[in-house]
Amino acid sequence: MSELRKDPIVGRWVIIAPDRAKRPQSYKPDREEFETRFDPFAVGNESATPAEILAYREPGTQANGPGWRVRVVPNKFPALQVEGTLEKRGDGIYDMMNGIGAHEVIIECPHFETNMSRLSVDNIREVLWIYRDRLVDLKKDRRLVHGLIFKNKGMSAGATIAHTHSQLIVTSVVPISVWEEMTGSLEFFNYRGRCIYDDMIQQELSAGKRIVLDTPNFVVFCPYASRFPFETWILPKTHSSHYENIQCQGVDELGMVLKTVLSKLEAALDDPPYNFVIHTAPFDTSELPHYLWHIEIFPRLTRVAGFEWGSGFYINSVPPEEAATFLRDVELPTDRGHAIPSVFA
Amino acid sequence: MSELRKDPIVGRWVIIAPDRAKRPQSYKPDREEFETRFDPFAVGNESATPAEILAYREPGTQANGPGWRVRVVPNKFPALQVEGTLEKRGDGIYDMMNGIGAHEVIIECPHFETNMSRLSVDNIREVLWIYRDRLVDLKKDRRLVHGLIFKNKGMSAGATIAHTHSQLIVTSVVPISVWEEMTGSLEFFNYRGRCIYDDMIQQELSAGKRIVLDTPNFVVFCPYASRFPFETWILPKTHSSHYENIQCQGVDELGMVLKTVLSKLEAALDDPPYNFVIHTAPFDTSELPHYLWHIEIFPRLTRVAGFEWGSGFYINSVPPEEAATFLRDVELPTDRGHAIPSVFA
Repeated sequence: MSELRKDPIVGRWVIIAPDRAKRPQSYKPDREEFETRFDPFAVGNESATPAEILAYREPGTQANGPGWRVRVVPNKFPALQVEGTLEKRGDGIYDMMNGIGAHEVIIECPHFETNMSRLSVDNIREVLWIYRDRLVDLKKDRRLVHGLIFKNKGMSAGATIAHTHSQLIVTSVVPISVWEEMTGSLEFFNYRGRCIYDDMIQQELSAGKRIVLDTPNFVVFCPYASRFPFETWILPKTHSSHYENIQCQGVDELGMVLKTVLSKLEAALDDPPYNFVIHTAPFDTSELPHYLWHIEIFPRLTRVAGFEWGSGFYINSVPPEEAATFLRDVELPTDRGHAIPSVFA
Repeated sequence: MSELRKDPIVGRWVIIAPDRAKRPQSYKPDREEFETRFDPFAVGNESATPAEILAYREPGTQANGPGWRVRVVPNKFPALQVEGTLEKRGDGIYDMMNGIGAHEVIIECPHFETNMSRLSVDNIREVLWIYRDRLVDLKKDRRLVHGLIFKNKGMSAGATIAHTHSQLIVTSVVPISVWEEMTGSLEFFNYRGRCIYDDMIQQELSAGKRIVLDTPNFVVFCPYASRFPFETWILPKTHSSHYENIQCQGVDELGMVLKTVLSKLEAALDDPPYNFVIHTAPFDTSELPHYLWHIEIFPRLTRVAGFEWGSGFYINSVPPEEAATFLRDVELPTDRGHAIPSVFA
């Protein structure tokens, strides 16, 4: 079983997962090319993955066989596992616990496709909905306190399989970055009585220059202090701290918004590698007035170097105003269902 | 001039440096290969860099000509500059200031060489000493509060020039990661009355299993909560919070230690890309009993993906105990001055 270890200085947790290891003797930098001869995520190859946890299927089809549209399976090399007990313990000045949690893969479509943006809006809606279903299910386990949904697109963004998929890692401690967002937004709320995310939305809509897309229920902008060129955030306009409380109507519109934003980034940047992460409040909190769930997307155009690692300070050579203007101006072919209908524009 | 912008939620600063930009229209992922036809850092090519700030030279040689052994120049595409005023100001809920600071390049040797580990110990000592000299000089500017010295080795670690070099970025705000180390170690000190780094050194020396090297004045280990495979830290045994207060004797031994550790990592991991960062206390503090300057080295073997970016949680598949054992066991050829003399072993 893997171990969770805490850095005693800054309080950051690390998962030591030797089962995922290549042996040090063979430790070479990661491969540069995807394996393309066999697609373990394609329909018909269900036996290449661990048994499915959940799938949206055609009526009458069997688990772990064809007939699914979106499918969730355990990660084959999980960093965390549900079985076992936490056993929090110390080792001198250090703190650790067992690697209890969940590490799942959301296979977004049955046919081979590398880009989520090319899935139909209906398909993306089902992916967004299955994210919710998994969070709702996993938060019943009281040992687990936070669920992080993310996507690695392209090898240099950390993907190891080309077929479009996302991942879910559910942990028994609140990740430090989530903790910092919670603390920072709570401080703002305590001081001003308002949600800082709502304030940002108001200021961004009023300034306009960093806005990429503005729809009835979502706003998309390049944040003021963007760490990366073309960093892009999607925020709901209706206050909600937990992604898993999203409603059908929200998912419908979000599917369209996500498809449009990813398509614009891909058109603007020549199909770049990227990550997106859904930021959402910990399980063990009820609706929080100071926090807003949102999606952060960052194309991986530049390499993060020693300065960023050492300082947490980022150097970004593309002002977000310039990135947003560029993304706003990208025109998408409407005939492939890419674009937001004019009612949203 | 570049701008410093503060993330209003977590307080992280970002340098928006459009002068370093490629235009968005041509925004493609970074190159995969070094330019090798011309070495702008080689002796004889001094005019390819901005005018030197400092160089250790043979007597009688002229600035910006041959005769130097180690040379410091401004970064040709600086993220920050010394000229101008800070002009701290707000923009609604956002905070910003001008990009005042320094961004320098330390060219470590006059001949073409890609690996610091292959420089002579005397050469490395001069590099370590010139780091100190630059910090001592820059901290006289009261607008500047922190200096970060780091190295990017290899393209996937963020280097753009193959010739071995390090960089120095001096900022007008304390970087968030430095702030977190200061805060975390101060909390420990207030609670226990001891420096957490000294405690770590004691525990590591006593346990032994994560130790890579133990010399009279330095200890090298793979930290308990290593974020990355083969993450390796070098710490001085004599308490000191500021790198720039290092003494001649310390630099002499550190040169040997650094050469040995880098050589071991390169032998173990087949010359991997890596970063190292000198962690040191802010300029505007006197000697701090709760903090210890140190060097963190991390080979870039795996790609950092969405989970790490979103959570600050790291998954490391090589337990530090295993990495340290492997590094301890690497034997270096003694005839090239790589190894620590037996008095240190």
